[in-house]
Amino acid sequence: MNIAVIGLGLMGGSFALDIKSVYSNSKIFGIDNSDSNLKEALALDLIDQIITYDDLIKMDIVLVSIPVNYSLIVIPKVLEKINENTLVFDVGSTKEAICQILENHPKRANFLAAHPMAGTEFSGPKAAHKGLYISKTNILCEFEKTDHKLREFALEIFDNLNMKIIYMDPKPHDVHVAYVSHLSHISSFMLGKTVIEKEKNEKNIFDLAGSGFESTVRLAKSLPETWTPIFLQNKNNLVLAIDEYISNLNALKKIIENNDSNKLSSILNDTNRIKEILSNKLENGK
Amino acid sequence: MNIAVIGLGLMGGSFALDIKSVYSNSKIFGIDNSDSNLKEALALDLIDQIITYDDLIKMDIVLVSIPVNYSLIVIPKVLEKINENTLVFDVGSTKEAICQILENHPKRANFLAAHPMAGTEFSGPKAAHKGLYISKTNILCEFEKTDHKLREFALEIFDNLNMKIIYMDPKPHDVHVAYVSHLSHISSFMLGKTVIEKEKNEKNIFDLAGSGFESTVRLAKSLPETWTPIFLQNKNNLVLAIDEYISNLNALKKIIENNDSNKLSSILNDTNRIKEILSNKLENGK
Repeated sequence: MNIAVIGLGLMGGSFALDIKSVYSNSKIFGIDNSDSNLKEALALDLIDQIITYDDLIKMDIVLVSIPVNYSLIVIPKVLEKINENTLVFDVGSTKEAICQILENHPKRANFLAAHPMAGTEFSGPKAAHKGLYISKTNILCEFEKTDHKLREFALEIFDNLNMKIIYMDPKPHDVHVAYVSHLSHISSFMLGKTVIEKEKNEKNIFDLAGSGFESTVRLAKSLPETWTPIFLQNKNNLVLAIDEYISNLNALKKIIENNDSNKLSSILNDTNRIKEILSNKLENGK
Repeated sequence: MNIAVIGLGLMGGSFALDIKSVYSNSKIFGIDNSDSNLKEALALDLIDQIITYDDLIKMDIVLVSIPVNYSLIVIPKVLEKINENTLVFDVGSTKEAICQILENHPKRANFLAAHPMAGTEFSGPKAAHKGLYISKTNILCEFEKTDHKLREFALEIFDNLNMKIIYMDPKPHDVHVAYVSHLSHISSFMLGKTVIEKEKNEKNIFDLAGSGFESTVRLAKSLPETWTPIFLQNKNNLVLAIDEYISNLNALKKIIENNDSNKLSSILNDTNRIKEILSNKLENGK
Protein backbone atom coordinates (compact mmCIF):
# COMPACT_ATOMS: atom_id res chain seq x y z
CA MET A 1 0.00 0.00 0.00
CA ASN A 2 1.25 3.49 -0.87
CA ILE A 3 0.62 6.04 1.84
CA ALA A 4 1.45 9.73 1.58
CA VAL A 5 1.73 11.97 4.61
CA ILE A 6 1.56 15.70 3.94
CA GLY A 7 2.96 17.55 6.95
CA LEU A 8 5.51 15.58 8.96
CA GLY A 9 5.00 16.98 12.42
CA LEU A 10 3.67 15.26 15.54
CA MET A 11 0.38 14.14 13.96
CA GLY A 12 1.69 13.17 10.53
CA GLY A 13 4.87 11.54 11.76
CA SER A 14 3.05 9.53 14.42
CA PHE A 15 0.47 8.38 11.88
CA ALA A 16 3.31 7.18 9.64
CA LEU A 17 4.65 5.07 12.51
CA ASP A 18 1.26 3.71 13.61
CA ILE A 19 0.02 2.85 10.12
CA LYS A 20 3.32 1.10 9.34
CA SER A 21 2.98 -1.00 12.47
CA VAL A 22 -0.41 -2.20 11.21
CA TYR A 23 0.30 -2.47 7.47
CA SER A 24 3.96 -3.46 7.57
CA ASN A 25 4.25 -3.87 3.80
CA SER A 26 3.11 -0.33 3.06
CA LYS A 27 5.47 2.33 1.81
CA ILE A 28 5.30 5.78 3.39
CA PHE A 29 5.89 8.88 1.25
CA GLY A 30 6.36 12.37 2.62
CA ILE A 31 5.58 15.92 1.56
CA ASP A 32 6.42 18.95 3.69
CA ASN A 33 7.18 22.57 2.85
CA SER A 34 10.08 22.45 5.29
CA ASP A 35 13.23 20.79 3.94
CA SER A 36 14.55 20.20 7.42
CA ASN A 37 11.32 18.41 8.40
CA LEU A 38 11.70 16.16 5.34
CA LYS A 39 15.32 15.36 6.15
CA GLU A 40 14.49 14.70 9.77
CA ALA A 41 11.53 12.48 8.83
CA LEU A 42 13.79 10.41 6.57
CA ALA A 43 16.52 10.19 9.21
CA LEU A 44 13.99 9.13 11.84
CA ASP A 45 12.52 6.49 9.46
CA LEU A 46 9.11 8.11 9.61
CA ILE A 47 8.97 8.06 5.80
CA ASP A 48 10.61 5.93 3.14
CA GLN A 49 10.78 8.53 0.39
CA ILE A 50 10.16 12.20 -0.37
CA ILE A 51 7.64 12.88 -3.15
CA THR A 52 5.89 15.83 -4.80
CA TYR A 53 2.20 16.53 -5.32
CA ASP A 54 2.41 15.01 -8.82
CA ASP A 55 3.21 11.64 -7.26
CA LEU A 56 -0.06 11.59 -5.31
CA ILE A 57 -1.72 9.88 -8.30
CA LYS A 58 -0.02 6.63 -7.16
CA MET A 59 -1.24 6.75 -3.56
CA ASP A 60 -3.85 4.57 -1.83
CA ILE A 61 -4.06 6.87 1.19
CA VAL A 62 -3.15 10.54 1.62
CA LEU A 63 -3.11 11.98 5.13
CA VAL A 64 -3.10 15.78 5.36
CA SER A 65 -1.71 16.82 8.75
CA ILE A 66 -0.90 20.53 8.49
CA PRO A 67 -2.22 23.67 10.22
CA VAL A 68 -5.96 24.07 9.55
CA ASN A 69 -5.56 27.34 7.63
CA TYR A 70 -3.27 25.62 5.11
CA SER A 71 -5.62 22.62 4.89
CA LEU A 72 -8.19 24.87 3.24
CA ILE A 73 -5.73 25.49 0.40
CA VAL A 74 -3.85 22.18 0.28
CA ILE A 75 -6.71 19.63 0.48
CA PRO A 76 -8.54 20.92 -2.65
CA LYS A 77 -5.20 20.78 -4.49
CA VAL A 78 -4.53 17.24 -3.21
CA LEU A 79 -7.95 16.07 -4.43
CA GLU A 80 -7.06 17.26 -7.93
CA LYS A 81 -3.87 15.21 -7.93
CA ILE A 82 -5.08 11.82 -6.66
CA ASN A 83 -6.56 8.85 -8.54
CA GLU A 84 -10.23 7.92 -8.23
CA ASN A 85 -9.59 5.25 -5.56
CA THR A 86 -7.40 7.33 -3.26
CA LEU A 87 -8.65 7.97 0.26
CA VAL A 88 -7.73 11.44 1.54
CA PHE A 89 -8.31 12.36 5.15
CA ASP A 90 -7.20 15.07 7.54
CA VAL A 91 -6.66 15.29 11.30
CA GLY A 92 -7.61 18.97 11.79
CA SER A 93 -9.14 20.22 15.03
CA THR A 94 -11.83 22.25 13.21
CA LYS A 95 -14.22 20.71 10.71
CA GLU A 96 -16.76 23.29 9.59
CA ALA A 97 -14.49 25.37 7.35
CA ILE A 98 -12.89 22.43 5.53
CA CYS A 99 -16.24 20.70 4.93
CA GLN A 100 -17.71 23.94 3.61
CA ILE A 101 -14.83 24.58 1.22
CA LEU A 102 -15.00 21.06 -0.21
CA GLU A 103 -18.81 20.95 -0.40
CA ASN A 104 -18.98 21.14 -4.19
CA HIS A 105 -15.54 19.79 -5.01
CA PRO A 106 -15.80 17.20 -7.82
CA LYS A 107 -13.65 14.82 -5.77
CA ARG A 108 -15.50 15.41 -2.45
CA ALA A 109 -16.26 11.67 -2.18
CA ASN A 110 -12.52 10.89 -1.94
CA PHE A 111 -12.22 12.97 1.22
CA LEU A 112 -13.02 11.97 4.78
CA ALA A 113 -13.13 14.72 7.44
CA ALA A 114 -11.51 13.20 10.53
CA HIS A 115 -10.41 14.49 13.92
CA PRO A 116 -8.52 12.01 16.09
CA MET A 117 -8.58 13.15 19.72
CA ALA A 118 -4.86 12.59 20.08
CA GLY A 119 -1.85 14.80 20.49
CA THR A 120 0.75 16.10 22.89
CA GLU A 121 2.19 19.54 23.57
CA PHE A 122 5.27 18.69 21.49
CA SER A 123 5.74 19.29 17.77
CA GLY A 124 7.86 18.52 14.73
CA PRO A 125 9.08 15.15 13.37
CA LYS A 126 11.05 14.45 16.57
CA ALA A 127 7.80 14.57 18.56
CA ALA A 128 6.35 11.73 16.47
CA HIS A 129 5.97 8.48 18.36
CA LYS A 130 4.37 5.06 17.97
CA GLY A 131 0.99 4.58 19.59
CA LEU A 132 -0.31 8.16 19.41
CA TYR A 133 -3.38 7.01 17.45
CA ILE A 134 -3.87 3.62 19.07
CA SER A 135 -7.17 3.28 21.00
CA LYS A 136 -7.99 6.99 20.68
CA THR A 137 -11.37 8.50 19.80
CA ASN A 138 -11.71 9.54 16.15
CA ILE A 139 -14.49 11.93 15.17
CA LEU A 140 -15.71 11.57 11.59
CA CYS A 141 -17.79 14.37 10.04
CA GLU A 142 -20.13 14.17 7.03
CA PHE A 143 -19.25 10.48 6.75
CA GLU A 144 -22.07 10.00 4.25
CA LYS A 145 -20.34 12.33 1.79
CA THR A 146 -17.37 9.97 1.44
CA ASP A 147 -17.55 7.25 -1.22
CA HIS A 148 -18.95 4.05 0.35
CA LYS A 149 -15.95 1.89 -0.61
CA LEU A 150 -13.52 4.45 0.78
CA ARG A 151 -15.66 4.70 3.93
CA GLU A 152 -15.27 0.97 4.49
CA PHE A 153 -11.56 1.21 3.79
CA ALA A 154 -11.20 4.06 6.30
CA LEU A 155 -13.13 2.18 9.00
CA GLU A 156 -10.92 -0.86 8.45
CA ILE A 157 -7.81 1.29 8.95
CA PHE A 158 -9.19 2.95 12.10
CA ASP A 159 -10.33 -0.41 13.41
CA ASN A 160 -6.83 -1.78 12.95
CA LEU A 161 -5.60 1.17 15.00
CA ASN A 162 -8.22 0.22 17.61
CA MET A 163 -9.78 3.68 17.38
CA LYS A 164 -13.23 4.46 18.78
CA ILE A 165 -15.36 6.13 16.10
CA ILE A 166 -17.82 8.96 16.76
CA TYR A 167 -19.94 10.39 13.96
CA MET A 168 -20.81 14.05 14.14
CA ASP A 169 -21.83 16.98 11.95
CA PRO A 170 -19.16 19.65 11.47
CA LYS A 171 -21.11 22.38 13.31
CA PRO A 172 -21.69 20.48 16.61
CA HIS A 173 -18.17 19.08 16.31
CA ASP A 174 -16.72 22.58 16.32
CA VAL A 175 -18.95 23.61 19.25
CA HIS A 176 -17.91 20.60 21.35
CA VAL A 177 -14.20 20.87 20.71
CA ALA A 178 -14.36 24.59 21.56
CA TYR A 179 -15.12 23.41 25.11
CA VAL A 180 -13.23 20.15 25.60
CA SER A 181 -10.13 21.06 23.63
CA HIS A 182 -9.72 24.65 22.48
CA LEU A 183 -10.80 26.26 25.79
CA SER A 184 -8.34 24.03 27.67
CA HIS A 185 -5.57 25.41 25.48
CA ILE A 186 -6.73 29.01 26.02
CA SER A 187 -6.96 28.56 29.81
CA SER A 188 -3.52 26.97 29.91
CA PHE A 189 -1.87 29.58 27.66
CA MET A 190 -3.33 32.44 29.70
CA LEU A 191 -2.32 30.79 32.99
CA GLY A 192 1.22 30.57 31.64
CA LYS A 193 1.10 34.21 30.49
CA THR A 194 -0.24 35.47 33.83
CA VAL A 195 2.42 33.65 35.82
CA ILE A 196 5.26 34.64 33.47
CA GLU A 197 4.20 38.29 33.75
CA LYS A 198 4.30 38.06 37.52
CA GLU A 199 7.68 36.40 37.37
CA LYS A 200 9.22 39.41 35.62
CA ASN A 201 9.14 41.21 38.94
CA GLU A 202 9.35 38.30 41.30
CA LYS A 203 12.47 36.22 40.83
CA ASN A 204 12.46 32.43 41.10
CA ILE A 205 8.72 32.12 41.36
CA PHE A 206 9.05 28.96 39.27
CA ASP A 207 11.20 27.25 41.88
CA LEU A 208 7.94 26.97 43.75
CA ALA A 209 6.00 25.35 40.94
CA GLY A 210 4.75 21.89 41.81
CA SER A 211 3.29 19.20 39.60
CA GLY A 212 -0.14 20.87 39.76
CA PHE A 213 1.05 23.98 37.98
CA GLU A 214 3.00 21.89 35.49
CA SER A 215 0.02 19.83 34.42
CA THR A 216 -2.34 22.83 34.23
CA VAL A 217 0.12 24.80 32.12
CA ARG A 218 1.25 21.89 29.94
CA LEU A 219 -0.79 22.88 26.89
CA ALA A 220 0.83 26.34 26.90
CA LYS A 221 3.84 24.60 25.36
CA SER A 222 1.80 23.85 22.22
CA LEU A 223 2.84 25.08 18.78
CA PRO A 224 1.52 28.59 17.85
CA GLU A 225 1.51 27.67 14.13
CA THR A 226 -0.99 24.90 14.91
CA TRP A 227 -3.17 26.71 17.43
CA THR A 228 -3.45 30.24 16.03
CA PRO A 229 -5.47 29.10 12.96
CA ILE A 230 -7.55 26.67 15.07
CA PHE A 231 -8.58 29.47 17.46
CA LEU A 232 -9.40 31.75 14.52
CA GLN A 233 -11.32 29.14 12.51
CA ASN A 234 -13.40 28.29 15.56
CA LYS A 235 -13.73 31.93 16.62
CA ASN A 236 -17.51 32.07 17.05
CA ASN A 237 -17.78 29.01 19.27
CA LEU A 238 -14.58 29.71 21.14
CA VAL A 239 -15.48 33.30 22.02
CA LEU A 240 -18.71 32.03 23.62
CA ALA A 241 -16.78 29.40 25.56
CA ILE A 242 -14.24 31.99 26.76
CA ASP A 243 -17.12 34.25 27.82
CA GLU A 244 -18.68 31.49 29.91
CA TYR A 245 -15.28 30.68 31.42
CA ILE A 246 -14.65 34.34 32.34
CA SER A 247 -18.13 34.64 33.79
CA ASN A 248 -17.49 31.59 36.02
CA LEU A 249 -14.15 33.07 37.10
CA ASN A 250 -15.77 36.40 37.94
CA ALA A 251 -18.51 34.71 39.95
CA LEU A 252 -15.98 32.64 41.90
CA LYS A 253 -13.87 35.73 42.57
CA LYS A 254 -16.93 37.46 44.04
CA ILE A 255 -17.63 34.46 46.26
CA ILE A 256 -14.04 34.48 47.52
CA GLU A 257 -14.16 38.23 48.12
CA ASN A 258 -17.35 37.75 50.14
CA ASN A 259 -15.74 34.99 52.23
CA ASP A 260 -18.68 32.78 51.30
CA SER A 261 -17.18 29.51 52.45
CA ASN A 262 -20.35 27.44 51.95
CA LYS A 263 -20.95 28.56 48.40
CA LEU A 264 -17.28 28.20 47.47
CA SER A 265 -17.15 24.72 48.91
CA SER A 266 -20.36 23.73 47.16
CA ILE A 267 -19.05 24.88 43.75
CA LEU A 268 -15.81 22.96 44.20
CA ASN A 269 -17.83 19.93 45.27
CA ASP A 270 -20.08 20.08 42.22
CA THR A 271 -17.06 20.40 39.96
CA ASN A 272 -15.45 17.35 41.57
CA ARG A 273 -17.98 15.46 39.41
CA ILE A 274 -15.35 15.71 36.68
CA LYS A 275 -13.68 12.77 38.47
CA GLU A 276 -16.54 10.35 37.74
CA ILE A 277 -17.19 11.83 34.31
CA LEU A 278 -13.63 11.27 33.19
CA SER A 279 -13.30 7.86 34.78
CA ASN A 280 -16.56 6.71 33.12
CA LYS A 281 -15.15 7.98 29.86
CA LEU A 282 -11.99 5.96 30.41
CA GLU A 283 -13.96 2.84 31.24
CA ASN A 284 -16.23 3.23 28.24
CA GLY A 285 -13.20 3.79 26.09
CA LYS A 286 -11.90 0.31 26.91
CA MET B 1 11.88 8.34 67.46
CA ASN B 2 8.24 9.13 68.22
CA ILE B 3 6.43 10.88 65.41
CA ALA B 4 2.82 12.08 65.54
CA VAL B 5 0.84 12.87 62.42
CA ILE B 6 -2.29 14.96 62.94
CA GLY B 7 -4.54 14.58 59.90
CA LEU B 8 -4.11 11.31 58.03
CA GLY B 9 -4.98 12.34 54.49
CA LEU B 10 -2.77 12.48 51.42
CA MET B 11 -0.14 14.78 52.97
CA GLY B 12 -0.05 13.28 56.48
CA GLY B 13 -0.28 9.67 55.36
CA SER B 14 2.45 10.10 52.76
CA PHE B 15 4.70 11.81 55.29
CA ALA B 16 4.22 8.85 57.63
CA LEU B 17 5.41 6.50 54.88
CA ASP B 18 8.33 8.66 53.76
CA ILE B 19 9.64 9.40 57.26
CA LYS B 20 9.43 5.72 58.17
CA SER B 21 11.46 4.80 55.10
CA VAL B 22 14.21 7.14 56.34
CA TYR B 23 13.99 6.54 60.11
CA SER B 24 12.96 2.90 60.13
CA ASN B 25 13.10 2.61 63.93
CA SER B 26 10.62 5.41 64.49
CA LYS B 27 7.09 4.81 65.68
CA ILE B 28 4.25 6.67 63.97
CA PHE B 29 1.27 7.84 66.02
CA GLY B 30 -1.94 9.18 64.51
CA ILE B 31 -4.61 11.73 65.40
CA ASP B 32 -7.59 12.49 63.17
CA ASN B 33 -11.10 13.74 63.90
CA SER B 34 -12.44 11.09 61.54
CA ASP B 35 -12.67 7.59 63.01
CA SER B 36 -12.78 6.02 59.58
CA ASN B 37 -9.57 7.83 58.61
CA LEU B 38 -7.90 6.48 61.75
CA LYS B 39 -9.05 2.92 61.06
CA GLU B 40 -7.99 3.16 57.45
CA ALA B 41 -4.58 4.58 58.41
CA LEU B 42 -4.02 1.65 60.79
CA ALA B 43 -5.19 -0.88 58.21
CA LEU B 44 -2.90 0.63 55.58
CA ASP B 45 0.04 0.62 58.03
CA LEU B 46 0.43 4.37 57.75
CA ILE B 47 0.47 4.60 61.55
CA ASP B 48 1.39 2.20 64.32
CA GLN B 49 -0.99 3.52 66.96
CA ILE B 50 -3.84 5.95 67.57
CA ILE B 51 -3.20 8.57 70.28
CA THR B 52 -4.83 11.64 71.78
CA TYR B 53 -3.54 15.20 72.17
CA ASP B 54 -2.41 14.39 75.74
CA ASP B 55 0.08 11.89 74.32
CA LEU B 56 1.86 14.60 72.31
CA ILE B 57 4.12 15.24 75.32
CA LYS B 58 6.03 12.07 74.36
CA MET B 59 6.66 13.04 70.73
CA ASP B 60 9.90 14.09 69.03
CA ILE B 61 8.11 15.34 65.93
CA VAL B 62 4.51 16.43 65.37
CA LEU B 63 3.33 17.00 61.80
CA VAL B 64 0.07 18.93 61.42
CA SER B 65 -1.47 18.15 58.03
CA ILE B 66 -5.06 19.37 58.17
CA PRO B 67 -7.03 22.05 56.29
CA VAL B 68 -5.47 25.49 56.85
CA ASN B 69 -8.50 26.90 58.67
CA TYR B 70 -8.27 24.15 61.28
CA SER B 71 -4.49 24.64 61.57
CA LEU B 72 -5.13 28.07 63.08
CA ILE B 73 -6.96 26.39 65.94
CA VAL B 74 -5.11 23.09 66.24
CA ILE B 75 -1.47 24.22 66.07
CA PRO B 76 -1.68 26.57 69.11
CA LYS B 77 -3.34 23.70 71.00
CA VAL B 78 -0.62 21.26 69.91
CA LEU B 79 2.10 23.65 71.09
CA GLU B 80 0.57 23.64 74.54
CA LYS B 81 0.69 19.84 74.70
CA ILE B 82 4.24 19.08 73.54
CA ASN B 83 7.49 18.89 75.50
CA GLU B 84 10.20 21.55 75.15
CA ASN B 85 12.22 19.52 72.61
CA THR B 86 9.37 18.61 70.28
CA LEU B 87 9.54 19.87 66.70
CA VAL B 88 6.11 20.81 65.32
CA PHE B 89 5.67 21.66 61.65
CA ASP B 90 2.84 22.00 59.19
CA VAL B 91 2.45 21.51 55.44
CA GLY B 92 -0.19 24.18 54.77
CA SER B 93 -0.41 26.02 51.46
CA THR B 94 -0.80 29.44 53.16
CA LYS B 95 1.71 30.79 55.65
CA GLU B 96 0.79 34.35 56.61
CA ALA B 97 -2.21 33.55 58.82
CA ILE B 98 -0.56 30.76 60.80
CA CYS B 99 2.64 32.75 61.37
CA GLN B 100 0.59 35.73 62.53
CA ILE B 101 -1.48 33.69 64.96
CA LEU B 102 1.58 32.08 66.51
CA GLU B 103 3.64 35.29 66.62
CA ASN B 104 3.47 35.69 70.38
CA HIS B 105 2.84 32.08 71.36
CA PRO B 106 5.14 31.07 74.25
CA LYS B 107 6.10 27.90 72.34
CA ARG B 108 6.62 29.68 68.96
CA ALA B 109 10.22 28.39 68.83
CA ASN B 110 8.98 24.79 68.71
CA PHE B 111 7.11 25.48 65.47
CA LEU B 112 8.45 25.50 61.92
CA ALA B 113 6.20 26.90 59.17
CA ALA B 114 6.73 24.61 56.19
CA HIS B 115 5.13 24.20 52.78
CA PRO B 116 6.34 21.23 50.76
CA MET B 117 5.45 21.73 47.08
CA ALA B 118 4.04 18.24 46.82
CA GLY B 119 0.60 16.77 46.38
CA THR B 120 -1.81 15.13 43.99
CA GLU B 121 -5.49 15.65 43.20
CA PHE B 122 -6.39 12.66 45.39
CA SER B 123 -7.23 12.70 49.08
CA GLY B 124 -7.73 10.59 52.21
CA PRO B 125 -5.51 7.87 53.73
CA LYS B 126 -5.85 5.72 50.58
CA ALA B 127 -4.23 8.47 48.52
CA ALA B 128 -1.10 8.34 50.69
CA HIS B 129 1.92 6.91 48.92
CA LYS B 130 5.66 6.55 49.41
CA GLY B 131 7.86 9.12 47.74
CA LEU B 132 5.47 12.08 47.76
CA TYR B 133 7.99 14.18 49.70
CA ILE B 134 11.18 12.80 48.19
CA SER B 135 13.21 15.38 46.22
CA LYS B 136 10.46 18.00 46.37
CA THR B 137 10.88 21.71 47.11
CA ASN B 138 10.08 22.67 50.70
CA ILE B 139 9.46 26.33 51.53
CA LEU B 140 10.31 27.33 55.09
CA CYS B 141 8.96 30.60 56.48
CA GLU B 142 10.29 32.62 59.44
CA PHE B 143 12.97 29.98 59.89
CA GLU B 144 14.80 32.26 62.36
CA LYS B 145 11.85 32.07 64.75
CA THR B 146 12.35 28.34 65.27
CA ASP B 147 14.71 27.21 68.03
CA HIS B 148 18.19 26.69 66.56
CA LYS B 149 18.49 23.05 67.66
CA LEU B 150 15.08 22.21 66.23
CA ARG B 151 16.02 24.05 63.02
CA GLU B 152 19.02 21.78 62.62
CA PHE B 153 16.90 18.75 63.40
CA ALA B 154 14.32 19.80 60.77
CA LEU B 155 16.97 20.39 58.11
CA GLU B 156 18.42 16.97 58.82
CA ILE B 157 14.98 15.38 58.32
CA PHE B 158 14.34 17.30 55.08
CA ASP B 159 17.84 16.51 53.86
CA ASN B 160 17.21 12.82 54.46
CA LEU B 161 14.08 13.18 52.32
CA ASN B 162 16.33 14.85 49.70
CA MET B 163 14.14 17.96 49.76
CA LYS B 164 15.28 21.27 48.26
CA ILE B 165 14.88 24.05 50.82
CA ILE B 166 13.76 27.59 49.98
CA TYR B 167 13.57 30.26 52.69
CA MET B 168 10.88 32.89 52.35
CA ASP B 169 8.86 35.34 54.40
CA PRO B 170 5.18 34.46 54.86
CA LYS B 171 3.90 37.46 52.86
CA PRO B 172 5.87 36.86 49.63
CA HIS B 173 5.25 33.13 50.05
CA ASP B 174 1.51 33.69 49.93
CA VAL B 175 1.83 36.02 46.92
CA HIS B 176 3.92 33.51 44.96
CA VAL B 177 1.76 30.49 45.67
CA ALA B 178 -1.33 32.50 44.68
CA TYR B 179 0.15 32.42 41.16
CA VAL B 180 1.97 29.11 40.83
CA SER B 181 -0.43 26.99 42.83
CA HIS B 182 -3.75 28.53 43.85
CA LEU B 183 -4.51 30.17 40.47
CA SER B 184 -3.82 26.84 38.72
CA HIS B 185 -6.48 25.27 40.91
CA ILE B 186 -8.95 28.09 40.22
CA SER B 187 -8.37 27.92 36.45
CA SER B 188 -8.78 24.15 36.48
CA PHE B 189 -11.91 24.16 38.68
CA MET B 190 -13.57 26.81 36.50
CA LEU B 191 -12.62 24.98 33.29
CA GLY B 192 -14.29 21.88 34.71
CA LYS B 193 -17.37 23.90 35.72
CA THR B 194 -17.67 25.57 32.31
CA VAL B 195 -17.45 22.28 30.44
CA ILE B 196 -19.81 20.44 32.83
CA GLU B 197 -22.40 23.22 32.39
CA LYS B 198 -22.16 22.89 28.61
CA GLU B 199 -22.48 19.13 28.92
CA LYS B 200 -25.90 19.44 30.56
CA ASN B 201 -27.29 20.41 27.19
CA GLU B 202 -24.90 18.63 24.89
CA LYS B 203 -24.73 14.91 25.48
CA ASN B 204 -21.52 12.91 25.38
CA ILE B 205 -19.28 15.91 25.08
CA PHE B 206 -16.79 14.09 27.29
CA ASP B 207 -16.36 11.26 24.81
CA LEU B 208 -14.40 13.85 22.87
CA ALA B 209 -12.08 14.78 25.71
CA GLY B 210 -8.45 14.04 24.94
CA SER B 211 -5.45 13.97 27.21
CA GLY B 212 -5.10 17.76 26.91
CA PHE B 213 -8.42 18.41 28.62
CA GLU B 214 -7.68 15.76 31.22
CA SER B 215 -4.39 17.30 32.30
CA THR B 216 -5.75 20.86 32.34
CA VAL B 217 -8.75 19.84 34.42
CA ARG B 218 -6.88 17.45 36.73
CA LEU B 219 -6.74 19.82 39.70
CA ALA B 220 -10.55 20.20 39.60
CA LYS B 221 -10.63 16.79 41.27
CA SER B 222 -9.00 18.26 44.39
CA LEU B 223 -10.66 18.14 47.80
CA PRO B 224 -13.00 21.11 48.57
CA GLU B 225 -12.27 20.77 52.32
CA THR B 226 -8.61 21.47 51.59
CA TRP B 227 -8.99 24.16 48.95
CA THR B 228 -11.89 26.27 50.21
CA PRO B 229 -9.94 27.53 53.27
CA ILE B 230 -6.76 27.98 51.21
CA PHE B 231 -8.56 30.22 48.71
CA LEU B 232 -10.16 32.22 51.54
CA GLN B 233 -6.99 32.58 53.62
CA ASN B 234 -5.12 33.81 50.56
CA LYS B 235 -8.04 35.93 49.34
CA ASN B 236 -6.19 39.23 48.85
CA ASN B 237 -3.40 37.81 46.73
CA LEU B 238 -5.61 35.35 44.91
CA VAL B 239 -8.20 37.95 43.87
CA LEU B 240 -5.41 39.99 42.25
CA ALA B 241 -4.12 36.91 40.46
CA ILE B 242 -7.62 36.02 39.20
CA ASP B 243 -8.05 39.63 38.02
CA GLU B 244 -4.84 39.46 35.99
CA TYR B 245 -5.87 36.08 34.58
CA ILE B 246 -9.31 37.40 33.55
CA SER B 247 -7.74 40.47 32.03
CA ASN B 248 -5.41 38.28 29.92
CA LEU B 249 -8.38 36.13 28.86
CA ASN B 250 -10.37 39.22 27.85
CA ALA B 251 -7.47 40.62 25.85
CA LEU B 252 -6.97 37.32 24.04
CA LYS B 253 -10.69 37.08 23.28
CA LYS B 254 -10.56 40.54 21.67
CA ILE B 255 -7.58 39.51 19.56
CA ILE B 256 -9.43 36.38 18.38
CA GLU B 257 -12.57 38.42 17.63
CA ASN B 258 -10.46 40.81 15.56
CA ASN B 259 -8.87 37.93 13.62
CA ASP B 260 -5.49 39.34 14.58
CA SER B 261 -3.44 36.33 13.59
CA ASN B 262 -0.05 38.02 14.09
CA LYS B 263 -0.77 39.24 17.57
CA LEU B 264 -2.39 35.94 18.60
CA SER B 265 0.57 33.97 17.30
CA SER B 266 3.03 36.28 19.02
CA ILE B 267 1.31 35.88 22.40
CA LEU B 268 1.28 32.09 22.09
CA ASN B 269 4.94 32.22 21.08
CA ASP B 270 5.91 34.35 24.08
CA THR B 271 4.03 32.02 26.39
CA ASN B 272 5.85 29.00 24.94
CA ARG B 273 8.73 30.29 27.10
CA ILE B 274 7.10 28.27 29.89
CA LYS B 275 8.81 25.26 28.25
CA GLU B 276 12.33 26.50 28.99
CA ILE B 277 11.34 27.94 32.35
CA LEU B 278 9.98 24.62 33.56
CA SER B 279 12.78 22.53 32.11
CA ASN B 280 15.38 24.82 33.73
CA LYS B 281 13.52 24.39 36.97
CA LEU B 282 13.65 20.62 36.59
CA GLU B 283 17.37 20.71 35.82
CA ASN B 284 18.14 23.00 38.74
CA GLY B 285 16.06 20.76 40.96
CA LYS B 286 18.45 17.85 40.34
